[in-house]
Amino acid sequence: MASTSASAGALLRHVRTGRARSRADLVALTGASRNTVSARVDQLIAANLLKEGGRGGSTGGRPPTLLQFNSRAGCVLAVDLGASSVDVAVTDLSAQILATVGHPIDIADGPRAVLAEVDQLAQKVLAEAGLAPADVCAVGVGVPGPVEFSTGRPSYPPIMPGWHDFPIPSAFGRYECPVYVDNDVNVMALGEIGVAGSVQDLLVVKVGTGIGCGVIVEGRVYRGAQGSAGDIGHIYVGQPGGRTVSCRCGQENCLEAIAGGQALLRDARAAGLRVETVRDVVQLAAHGDGAALELVRDAGRTIGTVLAALVNFFNPHRIVMTGGVARAGVPLLAGIREAVYQRSMPLAARALEITVSEAPDLSGRVGAARMAIEEFLDEDSVAELAAER
Amino acid sequence: MASTSASAGALLRHVRTGRARSRADLVALTGASRNTVSARVDQLIAANLLKEGGRGGSTGGRPPTLLQFNSRAGCVLAVDLGASSVDVAVTDLSAQILATVGHPIDIADGPRAVLAEVDQLAQKVLAEAGLAPADVCAVGVGVPGPVEFSTGRPSYPPIMPGWHDFPIPSAFGRYECPVYVDNDVNVMALGEIGVAGSVQDLLVVKVGTGIGCGVIVEGRVYRGAQGSAGDIGHIYVGQPGGRTVSCRCGQENCLEAIAGGQALLRDARAAGLRVETVRDVVQLAAHGDGAALELVRDAGRTIGTVLAALVNFFNPHRIVMTGGVARAGVPLLAGIREAVYQRSMPLAARALEITVSEAPDLSGRVGAARMAIEEFLDEDSVAELAAER
Repeated sequence: MASTSASAGALLRHVRTGRARSRADLVALTGASRNTVSARVDQLIAANLLKEGGRGGSTGGRPPTLLQFNSRAGCVLAVDLGASSVDVAVTDLSAQILATVGHPIDIADGPRAVLAEVDQLAQKVLAEAGLAPADVCAVGVGVPGPVEFSTGRPSYPPIMPGWHDFPIPSAFGRYECPVYVDNDVNVMALGEIGVAGSVQDLLVVKVGTGIGCGVIVEGRVYRGAQGSAGDIGHIYVGQPGGRTVSCRCGQENCLEAIAGGQALLRDARAAGLRVETVRDVVQLAAHGDGAALELVRDAGRTIGTVLAALVNFFNPHRIVMTGGVARAGVPLLAGIREAVYQRSMPLAARALEITVSEAPDLSGRVGAARMAIEEFLDEDSVAELAAER
Repeated sequence: MASTSASAGALLRHVRTGRARSRADLVALTGASRNTVSARVDQLIAANLLKEGGRGGSTGGRPPTLLQFNSRAGCVLAVDLGASSVDVAVTDLSAQILATVGHPIDIADGPRAVLAEVDQLAQKVLAEAGLAPADVCAVGVGVPGPVEFSTGRPSYPPIMPGWHDFPIPSAFGRYECPVYVDNDVNVMALGEIGVAGSVQDLLVVKVGTGIGCGVIVEGRVYRGAQGSAGDIGHIYVGQPGGRTVSCRCGQENCLEAIAGGQALLRDARAAGLRVETVRDVVQLAAHGDGAALELVRDAGRTIGTVLAALVNFFNPHRIVMTGGVARAGVPLLAGIREAVYQRSMPLAARALEITVSEAPDLSGRVGAARMAIEEFLDEDSVAELAAER
């Protein structure tokens, strides 16, 4: 249901998502009085978050009534932390990247060493963009493991030794601003939301070594009761041949044990392909190797049987595939679509789009920025900001 | 994320869900100014939706500052339409039933005949409660089939011949108020939400002839892209023995073809039990018949394999079972729990409650009332109401 709130944060959201271009639009959208809207718009202008005037920036005479979001009122730091690399970007308040830099790391070096490196990189991109630490309004960080969102502490992350319970926000103390940390799949999911304030229901499925899913309900990350929503890698998958495959979690026939990157590598080796890494299998498929193609398509079919159930249950607008295995593209999608269209209810499948991420390398950074912006520009923060100035 | 809106509807919600008991509470909860809150509270008092004063209703002197929701400011009609019976209730604005009456119908008699009967019943309960048509603020209707929520028209409902595209709201024209229509499972799901403004993530699974699921995200019905979310009856279920079962939908091995009420009846007959209806099977199980018990438990296991996947994906706080087969209680729950706890991730399963509805007969009416109240008392309607008076 559309919010009809007329708080400063809600008004700002209407303008920055393009739904409103004037005070009159805001009055029409929220049902609030012209006086209320005008008073809050004036606060937002004083806080430098809204600007008055058309593109030409006319001055003098009667002031023009068009409102624009001032996406340069501040900047955010976006950190996309992976197992073996980190990308740091500084973006404006529309998640437009102003400068970015990447660096190899080893996540197993632990939080102090890795975050010291991140700190260096952040100072570098800020300088590159001609910005100062005081310009940073918020920091967003995506990490390759489970995180307690409210505290920004990883929670027994399997591939991040030494990171359990480490307060990641403390590493960004120099910016004196809020720091938001979430797992990489939720962050990437935010990076896949269309611009212009989409309120779509969206699944972003990452097929890398493991398999995870970001769940977006009306444009926001859905987390569930314990914050573990989207943990689809360990859904049980019946195998027609009765094959039993052990999973690293201790169970058998989990989705990722059959169709994740490691499973693909294992099956490729078993099929006699000369491959060292998952990437090798994906590249063989990309070059048209028949055996590799069939393995990727099979993985797609297995993932598709799980997605078919989730399509019936969740009825999403879109499913976006991302992660290393998704780079295989067509053969993976073909397998997924085959299973989903065969096994989902026609009403839910009819208008469903299933695609591969168009910018898998960027979605972590854009999503981290968007998380920081959405949280920072929520109704409380904006009200405070507007009151301060 | 908690709403920090300070609209009249939001303020009213804080009071009626018990989160706020005074203007000071509302100021603290919303961050809005004391003046703004007071002005809107005055509007809500003028609209008769809020009352000032403690339980004792003290008068004279300095007015006490406690605020109470006036749940008797109006009433709603709640209609729970089934295949063979209809229950009509009139409730106050807290969904407390003031009067109710039920009647056998045949849904196949079509919308005009059935809704004429509903109209008679509605007049009867209103009279019984000493209320007039003008007191009715909103009408909520649950029907046993898919509905386009925005128009209140059934959409090719399989067991409601003659109802496709019929504008159900038109049958309540005498009340000159909004009419909300949804499918029975979504309505029952609202009826299962705890009182006091729970914002839980909840699945309500109805196992009757078919199997459906109401999905509640933060206390509201989640509908998905085409409104078909929760349609879990046709999720594919692999059978260990390789058994193939045809479903009425044309597919094979759908959940409801294996574990729904009709499937249970079919399997009970095949096992030599003398049963005419699903209810007979459930009653045999309730009386401890070994074969019936095992059939019900098996159905529970199959339903549990699907719910295990949904628990990983959706991470709900609670799952409530309802519908005719759920009346079997313990054996069904045992089968479901066995599969869910075996197959869900520990983090998601640990705190999960799986129960049978405590008031399956009432949840349709309470849910229909709650749907009408929540929609009617949303921010727009309340703002209008407050402005009118």
